[in-house]
Amino acid sequence: MTASPFTTLERELGAVVGAQHVSPPAISDLEDATRWTGLRGNADAVVRPGNAEQVAAAVRWCYDHDMPITVRGGGTGLSGGAVPEGGIVLSLERLNRIRTMEPEWWRCEVEAGVTTEALQRRVREAGLRYPPDPGAGEVSHIGGNLATNAGGPHAFGHGVTRAWVLGVEAVLAPGELVHLGGPTRKDVAGYDLTSLLVGSEGTLGVITAAWLRLIPPPGAEQTVIGLFPSLASAQAGIGGALTCGAVPVALELLDGGALQDAGATLPVQDAAAEWSHLTDPTHAAVLIAHLEGDLAEATAARGDALVDTWQEAGATWTAVPSAASSSALATWRDSVSGAVAARRGGKLSEDVAVPTDRVAELLEGSAAIARRHGLEHAAWGHAGDGNLHCSFLLDPTSPERRAQAADAADELFSLAIALGGTISGEHGLGRLKSGHLSAQWDPAAVAAHQAIKAALDPKGLLNPGRKVA
Amino acid sequence: MTASPFTTLERELGAVVGAQHVSPPAISDLEDATRWTGLRGNADAVVRPGNAEQVAAAVRWCYDHDMPITVRGGGTGLSGGAVPEGGIVLSLERLNRIRTMEPEWWRCEVEAGVTTEALQRRVREAGLRYPPDPGAGEVSHIGGNLATNAGGPHAFGHGVTRAWVLGVEAVLAPGELVHLGGPTRKDVAGYDLTSLLVGSEGTLGVITAAWLRLIPPPGAEQTVIGLFPSLASAQAGIGGALTCGAVPVALELLDGGALQDAGATLPVQDAAAEWSHLTDPTHAAVLIAHLEGDLAEATAARGDALVDTWQEAGATWTAVPSAASSSALATWRDSVSGAVAARRGGKLSEDVAVPTDRVAELLEGSAAIARRHGLEHAAWGHAGDGNLHCSFLLDPTSPERRAQAADAADELFSLAIALGGTISGEHGLGRLKSGHLSAQWDPAAVAAHQAIKAALDPKGLLNPGRKVA
Repeated sequence: MTASPFTTLERELGAVVGAQHVSPPAISDLEDATRWTGLRGNADAVVRPGNAEQVAAAVRWCYDHDMPITVRGGGTGLSGGAVPEGGIVLSLERLNRIRTMEPEWWRCEVEAGVTTEALQRRVREAGLRYPPDPGAGEVSHIGGNLATNAGGPHAFGHGVTRAWVLGVEAVLAPGELVHLGGPTRKDVAGYDLTSLLVGSEGTLGVITAAWLRLIPPPGAEQTVIGLFPSLASAQAGIGGALTCGAVPVALELLDGGALQDAGATLPVQDAAAEWSHLTDPTHAAVLIAHLEGDLAEATAARGDALVDTWQEAGATWTAVPSAASSSALATWRDSVSGAVAARRGGKLSEDVAVPTDRVAELLEGSAAIARRHGLEHAAWGHAGDGNLHCSFLLDPTSPERRAQAADAADELFSLAIALGGTISGEHGLGRLKSGHLSAQWDPAAVAAHQAIKAALDPKGLLNPGRKVA
Repeated sequence: MTASPFTTLERELGAVVGAQHVSPPAISDLEDATRWTGLRGNADAVVRPGNAEQVAAAVRWCYDHDMPITVRGGGTGLSGGAVPEGGIVLSLERLNRIRTMEPEWWRCEVEAGVTTEALQRRVREAGLRYPPDPGAGEVSHIGGNLATNAGGPHAFGHGVTRAWVLGVEAVLAPGELVHLGGPTRKDVAGYDLTSLLVGSEGTLGVITAAWLRLIPPPGAEQTVIGLFPSLASAQAGIGGALTCGAVPVALELLDGGALQDAGATLPVQDAAAEWSHLTDPTHAAVLIAHLEGDLAEATAARGDALVDTWQEAGATWTAVPSAASSSALATWRDSVSGAVAARRGGKLSEDVAVPTDRVAELLEGSAAIARRHGLEHAAWGHAGDGNLHCSFLLDPTSPERRAQAADAADELFSLAIALGGTISGEHGLGRLKSGHLSAQWDPAAVAAHQAIKAALDPKGLLNPGRKVA
């Protein structure tokens, strides 16, 4: 009688990480935030190493035994990157130490399993700031942020995760722990393997820790909100935000569909503003800009300039929320994805990005695609970066709806590419978009993508099925 | 009688780019800014394509004929990256168009042969700003900036060249023109081949054009200068600049050796400040901080805070130059390298970088290395990024001095690595530092570096001898 796959893994990988840290997968280990689409994977075991050396040893064992590895962080990914297809789930949740916090030198070293919010909190307590702000920060891990090169609203002004990574500690195939960069702020000695690993979705190596760059917080902040009667006027509002001198660091958009779901829970209350306008069903989009500056008065003046610009662009209502309302608005903004999913129980939510001048075309086209497939539609996201979460609402228990949504997504990808954009601005390809890169890139670029995968993971065991061109 | 190599190249590559654009190399084609070290290469011909398609065709011909290619931009590199070792020089000087300037969307598309200053000027005229400011901007090309991932003083606050690249057009082996990214601001669909090409020193592909990101200029600027009696007090001044709330965007240092050479040409004149302090031979270092902000008064207040901090750190003299003097100071700062080289006719000038808290240790160690080798020493650079141009002065006609300087540089590299830093913060490995990466990186990281080179340039014809681990 041969041992079951799990019994073998428990014995062999238990010797590496401790038997209590190898377990059969729970349902939560087989899903990520794509559960709204009905996606669930399978795996023989979940392995939870306690440090980077154990990660290296576990990868080496898997490489020696042709065992596929799916690396798992907080499981908040939106493209199925953490959903396993057999093999083991390598969970980095126990690598949860902030190794070094050096606010006086604007840097820290943090392990992959630290949650985004735990890092943000420690950095705030130290009087500094780590700007990347992807959604789901209470659950998502820094390792996942790096693996996907996560964005978020403030990526518009401060750049995506990569811009904040000084260096990484990572395990490369067949199980070697390497250090690329570190506390030094500039380094062009070797090829930029740090940038190659960041955003590679765990398919080229396993990031176990990173040195991150920090900055002082702004002296003043200001939020401006504007309601637009048409997508054309919203596009003019986006353009105006870039040219009026306001220099926003975040420029978010919610379309009418997203406001229909999220508007009811809007928490803001300001004596001076009629927030109920936001639940008016005749609008096409709302824009929310966040400004940062040295001083309150100067930043407020820039906010006023933006209000004027937006009114010229056709906004039917504008407001400058109080600090408390701005904070509540940011929290509410984070809840939009869940509110939209709740309408029909599920959604297929993409993250295409286009040049900033083509946001209206993208939104019009995406809504038209939904109509053609008989699906409800909502969109929101990072208008300043042209990165919109175009979503097709669905009942996840309906295979027919899921198939319709998948077809609609294919058309959406074609539209984004036709507009000069990308099939993924921040979520990555994961499993859901695997295979679509070939429609976006030149064949020789795809060949280079594949050559790099083959060079760094010759057995194809690191997150197989993910980031496939 | 067989044709000479040049005759063959003129006929074959002349058919690709036009016979008048293939010529025997002039001495200026065989040198770059490392001529101070006496380095000169050799090549059979210089080929000057007129567009990206001709670059692709020329690379394809070379790949078919096993002909090594040295890509040449402005020739201002400081590590010998443009110095050929046989084969052809592929000059991109005719790719000198700014293809698109879209200030309203904060972006432009520019060909590789445009000079840094020509781009900066066009961007300024459009009311915006391209922040990277490597030296020699009147001569250096954007293509070279990208190939080396060039830094400069404002990289401290605004990031290196890579931070401003949205996408590249490039020729990959064996001669394929590809487009990676474009006007879209966020893209995580494929591996980050843009970052891999940027900084690869032309060894993985030939960048022919790039989409660059732009930003509005700051509303106010302020320069602060401080003279420090010891490297320890200068290190305290660097730390103070990070913690006092001034938030400089550039933080430059010149040591006593650099001021000895450059001090005499200091152009600044302010009634309120005694600039002659800067030629006092008893000081150890001067720090120059550049602040940017919304408003003049607030920025000036941050400058005042920095003055206080520097005085507490032990500065013996501080000044807040007028706007005109600040501008003159920046121009003078650019002339330091030439002034230092002039002392003995030449120099071997490195660009090591260390964590920002270890600048004083680096400068002390570098000066000690110079003394041990009987060489004069000067250092200056980007203190906020820990990136210092430690230079060994020499008569370039003396083989003995050149050998001493090379030995000193080897020790300097070991010192930078021992301090947790890198052998190159902004110039790259070129030919001068080729082979030294193995001392800095883990063996498995070096293997990954080499595997990527082999995957993308299997014949090893792109800038051979450069960026070798």
